[in-house]
Amino acid sequence: MNTTRAMLETYPRDYNVDTDKLQACIDACNECANACTQCADACLSEDNVAELIKCIRLNADCADLCVATGRVLSRQTEYDANVARAALQACIQVCKTCGDECERHASMGMEHCGVCAEACRRCQQACEELLATIS
Amino acid sequence: MNTTRAMLETYPRDYNVDTDKLQACIDACNECANACTQCADACLSEDNVAELIKCIRLNADCADLCVATGRVLSRQTEYDANVARAALQACIQVCKTCGDECERHASMGMEHCGVCAEACRRCQQACEELLATIS
Amino acid sequence: MNTTRAMLETYPRDYNVDTDKLQACIDACNECANACTQCADACLSEDNVAELIKCIRLNADCADLCVATGRVLSRQTEYDANVARAALQACIQVCKTCGDECERHASMGMEHCGVCAEACRRCQQACEELLATIS
Amino acid sequence: MNTTRAMLETYPRDYNVDTDKLQACIDACNECANACTQCADACLSEDNVAELIKCIRLNADCADLCVATGRVLSRQTEYDANVARAALQACIQVCKTCGDECERHASMGMEHCGVCAEACRRCQQACEELLATIS
Repeated sequence: MNTTRAMLETYPRDYNVDTDKLQACIDACNECANACTQCADACLSEDNVAELIKCIRLNADCADLCVATGRVLSRQTEYDANVARAALQACIQVCKTCGDECERHASMGMEHCGVCAEACRRCQQACEELLATIS
Repeated sequence: MNTTRAMLETYPRDYNVDTDKLQACIDACNECANACTQCADACLSEDNVAELIKCIRLNADCADLCVATGRVLSRQTEYDANVARAALQACIQVCKTCGDECERHASMGMEHCGVCAEACRRCQQACEELLATIS
Repeated sequence: MNTTRAMLETYPRDYNVDTDKLQACIDACNECANACTQCADACLSEDNVAELIKCIRLNADCADLCVATGRVLSRQTEYDANVARAALQACIQVCKTCGDECERHASMGMEHCGVCAEACRRCQQACEELLATIS
Repeated sequence: MNTTRAMLETYPRDYNVDTDKLQACIDACNECANACTQCADACLSEDNVAELIKCIRLNADCADLCVATGRVLSRQTEYDANVARAALQACIQVCKTCGDECERHASMGMEHCGVCAEACRRCQQACEELLATIS
């Protein structure tokens, strides 16, 4: 079983969020965070690194906010909806902005940017779906 | 000279944000992140730890989002106002929620919560002042 | 395909590390980091939280060092063996210490500590296997 | 009063480490982490960014390991000397490697690398001094 899921299923209290959407969102945050760290590194290895500065910068922002959001969501004890919502909104914004930038480079042949753009899109969507359940 | 300031003054390009407000905000994020990590740890050492669960949890969230926000703001190259704004808004929310919780315990004699609440308030205010300058 | 792998396979340069071992180690660091954040949170929800203080504290350390190590390893450009080795050694130590503590609580019926202990063991082993290839 | 110090002085238990050295080390980790994030960003703004790839990469590693080490050291509850030592050793290594690289660029006129190199040296030294007290 997926470890995030196994941890949610052994959590000792009830919690207030849909388990499938929560697991998907935590996993997507961690996947996107790592793809962005790898993408920044791959961009640094490209001959045209000077044209990839914006991508490297947004990758770093996206990695940092995805790690923070994945951690906030991994905490269900004394859950605070305002904090969860604020983290999700920040994550959605940076995944959108970084995903757009990566997609632009993917369309010009940067394969790692294409893989990273997909991870950003998945994370944005998972965050939006979880956010929609938080009243 | 403060190191954050020295780094801003040796930054090779122009940037679009007020230097005083930017430095204050980066420093406040880092100060608050560390105070929150220390406060969670101090709460774990209290005899009434069971009453401090919410504080420990919010401290951890606040530390994570303050570190991420401080890093996003430390990057001025190919600055994106939407990302900066989203990070600041998340940071303001978690500093407010965590600061309220710490203040409640400070009023019941938890001195470390009092020191941490002040760091949360300073960070919230520094983020609000910087956010106000980002159109 | 696993995203970590897809990013490694689209990396533009050659690199000096075994791909299978590198991917396994990055993934294990991220899995362990998240399991530890979830385990600290689950411990905070237990009635006997006062007996789980050491576990909560080590979970937090392990999460922080696993995230940092996963990021260092995700960077292959201008790879520095001394830095990779130092990060791996720190990660191995904290996974061992945290895994031991979690295992102790698992044997007393804390299921989430059991899941987390396994993630710590997997991460420790993946780091040891990668470290063995770094001369 | 410095906030790190105020938090240490309101910590509810005794702890086993020299307060001056501990505070200096936590503060140096946070200062170095932020200087490195700012230095990576400043390097990305330089015209000769292609010659600064190694510096950008080491800055990112150093920032990540300094944040993790500063957090580990900020936790005194159920302190584990093996974990503290391992984190300090990793931090010393990355501060040395990153400081050397920054110093090289400082000597060629990169002022931000000079400021960052000094922060790396201070952090390396503060970690070494704290490590020397941990038997």
